[in-house]
Amino acid sequence: MTSFASNDDGAGLAAPQRAALASFHAVIPAGGVGTRLWPLSRAGAPKFLHDLTGSGSTLLRATYDRLEPLAHDRMMVVTGVAHKEAVCGQLPEIPDSELVLESEPKDSAAAIGLAAAILFERDPSIIMGSFAADHVISPDGVFQAAVREAILTAAPGEGSDGKIVTIGIAPTHASTGFGYIRTGDPLAVAGAPHAYAVAEFVEKPDQQTADRYLAEGGYSWNAGMFVAPVSLMLKHLAANEPELHAGLTEIAQAWDTPQRAEVTGRIWPNLPKIAIDYAVAEPAAAAGDVAVIPGEFRWDDVGDFAAIGRLNSAKDTDNVTVLGEGARRVFTEDASGVVVTDTKRVIALIGIDDVVIVDTPDALLVTTTAHAQRVKAAVESLKASGDVDVL
Amino acid sequence: MTSFASNDDGAGLAAPQRAALASFHAVIPAGGVGTRLWPLSRAGAPKFLHDLTGSGSTLLRATYDRLEPLAHDRMMVVTGVAHKEAVCGQLPEIPDSELVLESEPKDSAAAIGLAAAILFERDPSIIMGSFAADHVISPDGVFQAAVREAILTAAPGEGSDGKIVTIGIAPTHASTGFGYIRTGDPLAVAGAPHAYAVAEFVEKPDQQTADRYLAEGGYSWNAGMFVAPVSLMLKHLAANEPELHAGLTEIAQAWDTPQRAEVTGRIWPNLPKIAIDYAVAEPAAAAGDVAVIPGEFRWDDVGDFAAIGRLNSAKDTDNVTVLGEGARRVFTEDASGVVVTDTKRVIALIGIDDVVIVDTPDALLVTTTAHAQRVKAAVESLKASGDVDVL
Repeated sequence: MTSFASNDDGAGLAAPQRAALASFHAVIPAGGVGTRLWPLSRAGAPKFLHDLTGSGSTLLRATYDRLEPLAHDRMMVVTGVAHKEAVCGQLPEIPDSELVLESEPKDSAAAIGLAAAILFERDPSIIMGSFAADHVISPDGVFQAAVREAILTAAPGEGSDGKIVTIGIAPTHASTGFGYIRTGDPLAVAGAPHAYAVAEFVEKPDQQTADRYLAEGGYSWNAGMFVAPVSLMLKHLAANEPELHAGLTEIAQAWDTPQRAEVTGRIWPNLPKIAIDYAVAEPAAAAGDVAVIPGEFRWDDVGDFAAIGRLNSAKDTDNVTVLGEGARRVFTEDASGVVVTDTKRVIALIGIDDVVIVDTPDALLVTTTAHAQRVKAAVESLKASGDVDVL
Repeated sequence: MTSFASNDDGAGLAAPQRAALASFHAVIPAGGVGTRLWPLSRAGAPKFLHDLTGSGSTLLRATYDRLEPLAHDRMMVVTGVAHKEAVCGQLPEIPDSELVLESEPKDSAAAIGLAAAILFERDPSIIMGSFAADHVISPDGVFQAAVREAILTAAPGEGSDGKIVTIGIAPTHASTGFGYIRTGDPLAVAGAPHAYAVAEFVEKPDQQTADRYLAEGGYSWNAGMFVAPVSLMLKHLAANEPELHAGLTEIAQAWDTPQRAEVTGRIWPNLPKIAIDYAVAEPAAAAGDVAVIPGEFRWDDVGDFAAIGRLNSAKDTDNVTVLGEGARRVFTEDASGVVVTDTKRVIALIGIDDVVIVDTPDALLVTTTAHAQRVKAAVESLKASGDVDVL
């Protein structure tokens, strides 16, 4: 992986391209509880802090390792202050200056915008790439090749502010769970033969529309991954959300100074909450400033336990996948599905197919992969009944 | 129930019948782990120590309470020494002299035979009744009426040693899991209009034979309940198992003396292991000494978790029965079955019908009522793998 990256990292490219790749800075927003993965994922231990693939790495650590060959030590993580210790435990190499802690969640435009603003203060020519901490991607080399094309496509040139470049995922089915990207004309970018203009972003469709997208072609899933010059990000943010832009800029100017805590504490709580899609991506697409690189890698946002079943090949007899360090002994007979255990209990599973068992010290979930999406309803019910300590 | 018993307890009967009822002494063998109810029932907490009906009483306590109106304080319990504390906790009124503790299990002939021998030493005219501690019976009044008929049928008379009287259960289906009693001719017993001779005991049949028994009629299930003069019990035991009879007699003679512990410790470990069916019941039936009273009450030996589902009407939405004091909150959606919990965990159950979930601190079982009999295989596998601490 590292040698693949080294061989490709600018070799054979002209100076402007090499400079673009060298200016890359990865940003990892690590947020989102992952309600449909309760009781494994929960407020105190969100999805990105779990190993959901049996790889031995948490999703956060795997995301970091996947980006490190591209960004080297230019890695920033944005997360909630409650997760500081867990994130530092996963990423002991990350310096304090690259760990952006949110005292309260302010949605993605504030999180990613602050990263952009801090990087802009340090060096306005930085090209940032933002990648969620809780997606599963493989193989890393294919992902990295797509990001390299995205960086080269994003790079400003003569008379150009560059592009905001998203990496689109080829739909494997007519999902109604994702927003879509409608691809436009191919772009002529040196070193990025797969770059296309983005015609528009479209919201999560109904089933009929999703079916049509899949049949027509030319649509890819919006996985929230994008690469862009920080200057272009901030230009669109300033145009669409001036108040947010001003606040983030004030925090960013204090970030690498002793005033960081005071300024952040004063401004952050009052920032508007808005998604980066509305604050930047959609208006930028309308302005013709967004491009897409098709991602030919395997991608999964691990939205529910059915995904965990798909992502893990069974390691036991009877097609039961067992995940979790807690597993002591799992006896299965005529069963299939996923068992995730955080306890040291013996588990016996007999005669149920496609089962999902999540065994934690204070909560137990038993369902099937077909019902995996309905875990959210259980969480909402528990919230309503006041059982918030297990959420 | 008590008033029913009082009204019936000898009122309107002749002196010999009243004497027979007054000589009754109940014996409760409390043994058997109940492997198919693992992990709820286990070596350290066998079936009889659990409330499996949601009544608030353990099966042992319910058995005691069902017999108490007939036997008053003439109640004896035979159990393993390991269960002494738990049994005394359930039955604080039981005196030390009525608690027979086995240092090691020696099968039912030794357990019930020792009770018979001890009672015989105290009073050779006692009529004993032996009733397992882990069956579910209702209503109590119907059971008590059957036991009264059994006592009157068992009572010795002029020129008669009396009878060993079993209480037969009318088959509700063609079960291959029970032995059967073939009913013979009606007997003319004062106060016991439902007494019949027993033609023979037959072993657990294959399915075809069980179907025939049900179709033909005249067969009832052998639930191991019997009432008999202790003298007649011991006569058959002496004839069939003289070594066992001699050993039990020696222990019994020391029982109510300071030598109890010494004599028991010396003799008990060397006694032969044999079931009461082979040592007494079957040879006594062949000798024409066995009668049967049909039990018209509802009876269940709670052989597996399917039985627990049958015995408990659902108390929650979605037809899920929740048992166990541990239950904190059980969320169910589109589910049915049984949840037994010994922990304080929140449980969410979504989209599985006829499920069985047994949630204990060190072991978790997830199966369906259709697979309930196969829990035994899980226990055997755990035993083979050395996980005996959870068995």
